[in-house]
Amino acid sequence: MLQYKDCVGQDIYELAGKLFPIHRSLTGEGVRQTLEEINSYLGKDMKFDIHEVPSGAQAFDWTVPKEWKIREAYIEDEVGNHIIDIKENNLYVMGYSTPVDMWVSLEELKEHIFVQDDQPDAIPYVTSYYKERYGFCMSKNQLDALPDGKYHMYIDSELFDGSLTYADAIFKGETDEEILLTSYICHPSMANNECSGPALLTALMQYVGSLEHRRYTYRFLLNPETIGSLVYLSKNYKHLQEKLVAGIVLSCVGDDRDYSIIESKYADTIAEKALKNILNSRGKHSVYSFLKRGSDERQYNAPGIDLPVVGFCRSKYGEYPEYHTSLDNMGLISPSGFQGSYEVMTQWIQAMEYNKKYKVTVLGEPQLGKRGLYPTISRKDMYGNILAMRDLIAYADGKNDLVDISNIIHVPVTELIPIVDKLKNGGLLEGC
Amino acid sequence: MLQYKDCVGQDIYELAGKLFPIHRSLTGEGVRQTLEEINSYLGKDMKFDIHEVPSGAQAFDWTVPKEWKIREAYIEDEVGNHIIDIKENNLYVMGYSTPVDMWVSLEELKEHIFVQDDQPDAIPYVTSYYKERYGFCMSKNQLDALPDGKYHMYIDSELFDGSLTYADAIFKGETDEEILLTSYICHPSMANNECSGPALLTALMQYVGSLEHRRYTYRFLLNPETIGSLVYLSKNYKHLQEKLVAGIVLSCVGDDRDYSIIESKYADTIAEKALKNILNSRGKHSVYSFLKRGSDERQYNAPGIDLPVVGFCRSKYGEYPEYHTSLDNMGLISPSGFQGSYEVMTQWIQAMEYNKKYKVTVLGEPQLGKRGLYPTISRKDMYGNILAMRDLIAYADGKNDLVDISNIIHVPVTELIPIVDKLKNGGLLEGC
Amino acid sequence: MLQYKDCVGQDIYELAGKLFPIHRSLTGEGVRQTLEEINSYLGKDMKFDIHEVPSGAQAFDWTVPKEWKIREAYIEDEVGNHIIDIKENNLYVMGYSTPVDMWVSLEELKEHIFVQDDQPDAIPYVTSYYKERYGFCMSKNQLDALPDGKYHMYIDSELFDGSLTYADAIFKGETDEEILLTSYICHPSMANNECSGPALLTALMQYVGSLEHRRYTYRFLLNPETIGSLVYLSKNYKHLQEKLVAGIVLSCVGDDRDYSIIESKYADTIAEKALKNILNSRGKHSVYSFLKRGSDERQYNAPGIDLPVVGFCRSKYGEYPEYHTSLDNMGLISPSGFQGSYEVMTQWIQAMEYNKKYKVTVLGEPQLGKRGLYPTISRKDMYGNILAMRDLIAYADGKNDLVDISNIIHVPVTELIPIVDKLKNGGLLEGC
Repeated sequence: MLQYKDCVGQDIYELAGKLFPIHRSLTGEGVRQTLEEINSYLGKDMKFDIHEVPSGAQAFDWTVPKEWKIREAYIEDEVGNHIIDIKENNLYVMGYSTPVDMWVSLEELKEHIFVQDDQPDAIPYVTSYYKERYGFCMSKNQLDALPDGKYHMYIDSELFDGSLTYADAIFKGETDEEILLTSYICHPSMANNECSGPALLTALMQYVGSLEHRRYTYRFLLNPETIGSLVYLSKNYKHLQEKLVAGIVLSCVGDDRDYSIIESKYADTIAEKALKNILNSRGKHSVYSFLKRGSDERQYNAPGIDLPVVGFCRSKYGEYPEYHTSLDNMGLISPSGFQGSYEVMTQWIQAMEYNKKYKVTVLGEPQLGKRGLYPTISRKDMYGNILAMRDLIAYADGKNDLVDISNIIHVPVTELIPIVDKLKNGGLLEGC
Repeated sequence: MLQYKDCVGQDIYELAGKLFPIHRSLTGEGVRQTLEEINSYLGKDMKFDIHEVPSGAQAFDWTVPKEWKIREAYIEDEVGNHIIDIKENNLYVMGYSTPVDMWVSLEELKEHIFVQDDQPDAIPYVTSYYKERYGFCMSKNQLDALPDGKYHMYIDSELFDGSLTYADAIFKGETDEEILLTSYICHPSMANNECSGPALLTALMQYVGSLEHRRYTYRFLLNPETIGSLVYLSKNYKHLQEKLVAGIVLSCVGDDRDYSIIESKYADTIAEKALKNILNSRGKHSVYSFLKRGSDERQYNAPGIDLPVVGFCRSKYGEYPEYHTSLDNMGLISPSGFQGSYEVMTQWIQAMEYNKKYKVTVLGEPQLGKRGLYPTISRKDMYGNILAMRDLIAYADGKNDLVDISNIIHVPVTELIPIVDKLKNGGLLEGC
Repeated sequence: MLQYKDCVGQDIYELAGKLFPIHRSLTGEGVRQTLEEINSYLGKDMKFDIHEVPSGAQAFDWTVPKEWKIREAYIEDEVGNHIIDIKENNLYVMGYSTPVDMWVSLEELKEHIFVQDDQPDAIPYVTSYYKERYGFCMSKNQLDALPDGKYHMYIDSELFDGSLTYADAIFKGETDEEILLTSYICHPSMANNECSGPALLTALMQYVGSLEHRRYTYRFLLNPETIGSLVYLSKNYKHLQEKLVAGIVLSCVGDDRDYSIIESKYADTIAEKALKNILNSRGKHSVYSFLKRGSDERQYNAPGIDLPVVGFCRSKYGEYPEYHTSLDNMGLISPSGFQGSYEVMTQWIQAMEYNKKYKVTVLGEPQLGKRGLYPTISRKDMYGNILAMRDLIAYADGKNDLVDISNIIHVPVTELIPIVDKLKNGGLLEGC
């Protein structure tokens, strides 16, 4: 049975904290440093394989863009103060900004500044990956307070033919049927979105690596969002269409708010059937249809790809106020937030491992009494405590998988797993 | 794209007005005059073909009845006043009345008079097609006010071996799959039921005739209700079972009240799927199950015929107070009532024309940005305006027709049609 | 058409009264006396065949237990009063008690006494079939009132290699497809649970035996609960899997409270579809899912058996306060309670007999008027009275069985049966 490490939430939180300050973007050194940090955390027994794909490479309808190098970016006032500087917060520069070195009036400056009107204290997160331009981001309050005068826009950056970086790791199981867990590594300093996903993914990789038996082969993947998953799919989609049983995109999994699921395109995969079962057993949570998609589940479910992949979050991206701003900082996420997400995901993995069709080995109801599984005195109201076992047996007719049975008999799959073990040990149940 | 004639409602209303005074019945000159009026309205480029089927001809379980000729019908009092006369309102005589020429007491007279007890001001509409008898209809108030005395019942009519008249017109499309639009021409002077159906049908025939491209072949049909559609089906049902994709019976389509649909027998045809989609996008309307059927959808859905035909009304027949009485007059219908019905039906035709399964031509999500279909700056809350396009693409995987996609993504099919055009023009979408 | 015997409820009640005092258990003379009483009630034209299966015989995962013989059982106080004695109520002894003859203190006595804490006036019903022990049952009030002192526990019983008794009867029909009606005969003196089931079953056997035509072959079965049905299934399950169309377990069918149905494992059998239709037409009733099962429907629906069998009760076992106590006496059941259950079950049998797919013999709507089935004058609001016939015809297209049609058109199947007869006699309808 599953044993939680009590302090795993704390560990994941600390890993997220190490990833937080790194200046990531779609490509570049920040991505590579992030993966090094993660591999270093994993230790010498286990690591992600790191891959580079050159700028200009084709991925379906898309082209891998140039690599972006950012050295410095600031706005300087007339007396030499850096009113913003990416040394303080890497959100101050628009992602993929081209270089600039120009003194302008306040009015001209404002044409290159993004603010978040409805959150005047927050620096927004803005990128322009596929059209060359430059820009800065700052809080509306700071911008409104700027006096007239001359300002120095300075960005020392470079767009060049480099490469896009991603990483994967595969853990072989008894079968070559696969489970995919993935998150993305292209966001700069925002904690929940998206230092939390890679940090949780790393902990889950340790968990899966530690399992004595694995029925499924597990694939862990970290890539830049959208173009990274398109690159990965363009190389692997045929394999995945053949082997993938279920996948989950992890995003925004570190805060303490309600859990969320983003359904697959037709809400019909075992991925979500099992995840909903787990979340139902834990109480209130949100179910978002595929119409509310936004992360890499978009690519896995795209026409012609059609893989059984869903999204898992605590607060869903796009639905919490701090999303894509500087307010999404390390104070928004917590060890307990990670602990909960870790428990959900390890329960999901265990549910997947146990989820098969079962069949009772005898015809008719088995006699539980002679096996010590049933009271030998029969009287009114004595059956409640063995009801889950009897109901599991009743529906273990080879037609239902374990999550189906759980849903039919209204007993969480996590509670059925030890009963399955007991019945299998007693020779009364077999997988089919 | 669909361009409405702004004044088409007015035109249809005027045509209905020309049909209103004609004394129609199941057979006879009134039917023929009605069809002449319609063909005259259509002008020289387009016309209904008119067919005659002799009395005694068999149509499945039914026999074409004798033709009815009515010359005069009145009730005269002792001083020679015509207290009712079909010269004033052709509802005063029961349809298919046999001749009579007899002086009777008030008491005897009453045995041959039909009134509408719950609508004392209205003359009811009554027929006796399949049993020979005679009778008059008048308002309850008028009957109650009649003084004692002698009355002259006079009907100069004839039932003879003649023929039943119907009319059809076919517009070839790119395929020989068919769409059927039909209404009936057997009701005397009632405006909504049923001068409105033939008048709207005539305008839709002009619309279909004016389309540059037609995917479907369109069949327009006007016949006397029940026996007429049975006659038509007995001649054409095998062809229709092979070719008919969808059909609509038009009835009571000229008033200004809510739209209504009468579902097919199993509520499972593309006819109603598309029509419901259109009506949903226009707001409040009524959906009646096949258990509330009453017009020729009865025959199209009858056992052994089983054609995909539904009914479309504004106020449904049988559900509005003026139905089948003299209160159903030209004041009950209006140009705006017809305009709305015309818009719904032309939108339905367009939805049918566009309704196929579509497939995106690239694997994975297409890059809309490089085609100018997506913003190049990525920040929070910029995606709403292109959400319908992205959702259409997500579900254009060859599994769903356009109405399915519309229903899944909650965007009316009328809004998707221009997006389909844009994506097809951009080479991103193809029908399959 | 079905003619009820008005007084059949009274007859059934009287038979239940004869069965009530017999001391039944899982095996033994009480079972045999019960079956003799029933066969004697049936008279010389009809009888149950009685079968014996030896102790130690195997039935799937179960073994037929030893036979139990009980001669005397009482508790005696120091002055020789029998404070309880099975001569007064056979619930006083735990079923299958081993012998005992021992003087004990009040404290020691209490270790062998079962009471019903929440019903202090009731003697509970307790058994220990599969583990040898002895015990007594009494009301909590009586136990609490016992003074300190010595008590004599005396049970003169015997567990020996004997046999288990069951009984069946088969009535051949036009086809060898079968309907099963069953109840159980192992409960001592409790009226609703379970003198009522065997008594009603006996009356239904008389009803079925009296039918001039039977489409189905009927199988009537009385056995001890659980082990009896397991024994029966182990001998007959292959035959039943091939032939059984529907079955009902009768239990607790004699009281006057609401009717109940216990659904099959997937709630998808014709047994429940027809029974729900009947119950819906009679008003308020309870539908219990298979998760609330408890009687022999457990065995018929067990994995690998999977027979289409549901449960029928008035108050469901386990759901009424008198259940499994001495309060379930002849005052709890009534002639009117039985009359209702008898009507439901005979209506169900008739629904099953008529339940096939029907097809109209003509194409299009038949002309009912020429057959005198439809008014010849057509005017507003004349169709209500023949609506059921027209709707039945509309859905008699060979796709729906009669209960389907009933559910679609919202007319109880009991009201459709005479219409089916009328249409078949008129040559308009045929089974298919």
